[in-house]
Amino acid sequence: MNYLLNTWYVAAWSHDVVPGAILARTILDQPVALFRRTDGTLAAIHDACPHRFAPLSAGILQGDRIACRYHGLAFDGSGACVFNPHGPTLRSMATRAYPVHEAHRAAWIWMGEPDRADPALIPDLSYLSEAPETAFSSGELLSGPGNYEVFVDNILDLSHTDYLHPDTLGGGANTKAKQEITESDGFFDVTWYARDIPPPPLLASLVDSLPERTDSFSRVRWFAPGVMKLVAGIVPAGADESVAVSNVNAHIMTPETARATHYFFAATRNYRTGDAELNERIAATRKRIFATEDKPMIELVDARMGGREFWSMRPILLSIDGASVRARRRLQALIAAEQAGTAAAAA
Amino acid sequence: MNYLLNTWYVAAWSHDVVPGAILARTILDQPVALFRRTDGTLAAIHDACPHRFAPLSAGILQGDRIACRYHGLAFDGSGACVFNPHGPTLRSMATRAYPVHEAHRAAWIWMGEPDRADPALIPDLSYLSEAPETAFSSGELLSGPGNYEVFVDNILDLSHTDYLHPDTLGGGANTKAKQEITESDGFFDVTWYARDIPPPPLLASLVDSLPERTDSFSRVRWFAPGVMKLVAGIVPAGADESVAVSNVNAHIMTPETARATHYFFAATRNYRTGDAELNERIAATRKRIFATEDKPMIELVDARMGGREFWSMRPILLSIDGASVRARRRLQALIAAEQAGTAAAAA
Amino acid sequence: MNYLLNTWYVAAWSHDVVPGAILARTILDQPVALFRRTDGTLAAIHDACPHRFAPLSAGILQGDRIACRYHGLAFDGSGACVFNPHGPTLRSMATRAYPVHEAHRAAWIWMGEPDRADPALIPDLSYLSEAPETAFSSGELLSGPGNYEVFVDNILDLSHTDYLHPDTLGGGANTKAKQEITESDGFFDVTWYARDIPPPPLLASLVDSLPERTDSFSRVRWFAPGVMKLVAGIVPAGADESVAVSNVNAHIMTPETARATHYFFAATRNYRTGDAELNERIAATRKRIFATEDKPMIELVDARMGGREFWSMRPILLSIDGASVRARRRLQALIAAEQAGTAAAAA
Repeated sequence: MNYLLNTWYVAAWSHDVVPGAILARTILDQPVALFRRTDGTLAAIHDACPHRFAPLSAGILQGDRIACRYHGLAFDGSGACVFNPHGPTLRSMATRAYPVHEAHRAAWIWMGEPDRADPALIPDLSYLSEAPETAFSSGELLSGPGNYEVFVDNILDLSHTDYLHPDTLGGGANTKAKQEITESDGFFDVTWYARDIPPPPLLASLVDSLPERTDSFSRVRWFAPGVMKLVAGIVPAGADESVAVSNVNAHIMTPETARATHYFFAATRNYRTGDAELNERIAATRKRIFATEDKPMIELVDARMGGREFWSMRPILLSIDGASVRARRRLQALIAAEQAGTAAAAA
Repeated sequence: MNYLLNTWYVAAWSHDVVPGAILARTILDQPVALFRRTDGTLAAIHDACPHRFAPLSAGILQGDRIACRYHGLAFDGSGACVFNPHGPTLRSMATRAYPVHEAHRAAWIWMGEPDRADPALIPDLSYLSEAPETAFSSGELLSGPGNYEVFVDNILDLSHTDYLHPDTLGGGANTKAKQEITESDGFFDVTWYARDIPPPPLLASLVDSLPERTDSFSRVRWFAPGVMKLVAGIVPAGADESVAVSNVNAHIMTPETARATHYFFAATRNYRTGDAELNERIAATRKRIFATEDKPMIELVDARMGGREFWSMRPILLSIDGASVRARRRLQALIAAEQAGTAAAAA
Repeated sequence: MNYLLNTWYVAAWSHDVVPGAILARTILDQPVALFRRTDGTLAAIHDACPHRFAPLSAGILQGDRIACRYHGLAFDGSGACVFNPHGPTLRSMATRAYPVHEAHRAAWIWMGEPDRADPALIPDLSYLSEAPETAFSSGELLSGPGNYEVFVDNILDLSHTDYLHPDTLGGGANTKAKQEITESDGFFDVTWYARDIPPPPLLASLVDSLPERTDSFSRVRWFAPGVMKLVAGIVPAGADESVAVSNVNAHIMTPETARATHYFFAATRNYRTGDAELNERIAATRKRIFATEDKPMIELVDARMGGREFWSMRPILLSIDGASVRARRRLQALIAAEQAGTAAAAA
């Protein structure tokens, strides 16, 4: 499959890369072994020994290196072979290393040209690192069928909540909401506004003393290829956004293969931020909704698509598709430009 | 795969299309959603929303229409989009509808050109609708591996009963029987006659006071592509068929995919027709035989064929293959004619 | 896949071809039905009836022939149809037979040109047939993922024992050992020598009164494509091999498909040869090690190779790969010669 290569992908939440353990992940069809060096920094190397292709993730983490379980070759986080029990270690024995960078509570990986891997290009999700523990949760949907762009569509069109999650996240407001898109360099925002409505049921159950009439907004900021910040806020009808009671979430889609996706989500909020019990409850509810409603639906959509390319299936377009179509077109252009650049560089 | 399109296929037994529920079926590789309108009539539409391809069978049946569970578009039995919560309903938003017709206790579907879907073309299985409840049973083999023509072969050569079902349906008579084929327009009959033999064991156990010497016959009427009526009768040696004690069955094979088949069977009889307990017993026995003997054998044959075309495997032909070869050739000719006609129409 | 055809493959251990039963095996992608005639001799025929492709292994063994369960045709061990309940038996009704020969407690099969199947070409594994029951065990790894050449590599490079089996078969000696290869017509030997070392732990636990310093050697004799004899011996430091305390094993790899292998192993020894309890213990230990350590590792390697050809993956070569590379090149040459010969014969 054609992926955007020169960009940062989330490979894992930071806390899932446990010191002393090796985490095996397939990212963009490539098997990757992630681990922490003894100084805590992250490393990611191709998850196959260059000798007989044994997965290094099945090996033994020895300090800053992984020893292959099959014949004992050891590799450090730069991919270099640093120990060969059977002879000299040569430069040609290296396995590929991938740039990794830890930021915003996540481990980011760069699958493209290493010398272009600038951490400054990582989208700003600092709201995640700044959130107190009692107002933060993160999770990961166990990788399941579904192309990552289909997962992205799911967030860029929140009207789906009214139909797929009618008793929880939805309630009709997103369908009635007015949608606005604001373009920027490197990202765009799509916002749904619903004015002068009763408070949405889920939020109403969490926040005390809401007024009877409210304005609500949901805003998704999309960064290519699949990093999204979602702010869902509510204010007394007519009030300014700055006083909003808000959930601030992240939805991050990393392609595993053409038909499987790592779905990372995180949540924080600006109300009852010291309430650990509420925090737990929000996390559990979200996990349940994604696992029992979004995941099965996307799996069904994937089955119907059967590996076919989205546009080749001639989908009908609705007013709600503005953002998702924009994301698909932007990403397509980025991939085309990258490949043209690669071709130019090779010519 | 090449299927005959302009013909009626059984999609389900009538009683399996339950009011208020949606039945999902794959027919000729196409996903289909079957349901009953509030007036009881059948409808069948392509089982994917044209917007994002969510299966409509995962949606909500609301009166005469299905609302998609993902974004709320609703479609009626004609395939038209009759509700769009996000904007106008346009003609271009339709999904495909398939002609369906209920007859002979079954739901028939037409996968070809809709304006050629004439209910008069449905094979006459009126003996099924006319049978009293206490002399009727129907069932469906859970779809399993096996091309539909291999399932058809299984009925068109009843000699297999002597080897695959030696203790029940078989007993040696079908192998010794004399086989006759009578051609007609639109169908053919193959009959196995065995004269002056002891009554077949299964029937003997069901019918009182059988004579010691009998003539028996088994007659399959085949309609393309895979609808078969099977009459198995017995008379006192030398008597006329009109006095026969008979089981009258249906074996109907609908392609699910090139390598999976919906096998619908039904049974009626002209003896002890008021005996509900016997009826239950016959139904249970047949179901057990199909599930534990025919199904595994056809699954094994399918594995050996491995998706290869039947004739390309150069099967040896035996005297018992007259009917099955005839059916394969007739069907091949019908498909060729249909495709030539389509090509001509397109030219 | 390209296999060497004109050679003997082990299809089963002799005791697994039980009189009165049919053993179904896939060998070199071909389904084979193995059975014993009433005189005890082996037969192997293509495991599909030429009529409708029902597996003959699902049939009924009747003396020296198999009757198909579907329509009753029967075939003898030469592949000839010897009974047709529906008409004459013709020569054209035959199924393919494969030469089989029983030797060294194993059933050998020849998948190539039958008239070249000379039992004298079977590798000499007479040490297996000569071993007393109390010093012999054999087994078979349930067929699992992995190309047979990857399984062969596993034995031709015993250094892996130090990393994959550090607590049992390994211990570091094989990595430190000096490797020597001796070429011969039809086979080669690779030997690892380790001189003046403490006795290897596994052997030390089995043999009483070992000296404190020993010389040890492990010698694999490889016969194309995948038959290996492995002698692992130990002598007091400086003594001659003729006084060695030795385990003498067989590791035999028969391709099932391009990505699955039948792994047959057997063990005998020249110490405590009357000790049935020890014999049991050795057999159980080996079976556990293969099943829990080698099999999963090769399955992981197979997943990483993903069906790609070994050399196309540009493996790095180490000093320990001398024998395995030699075997791959010899086999490649044999297959090329065989195919050139076939082409020449066909020209």
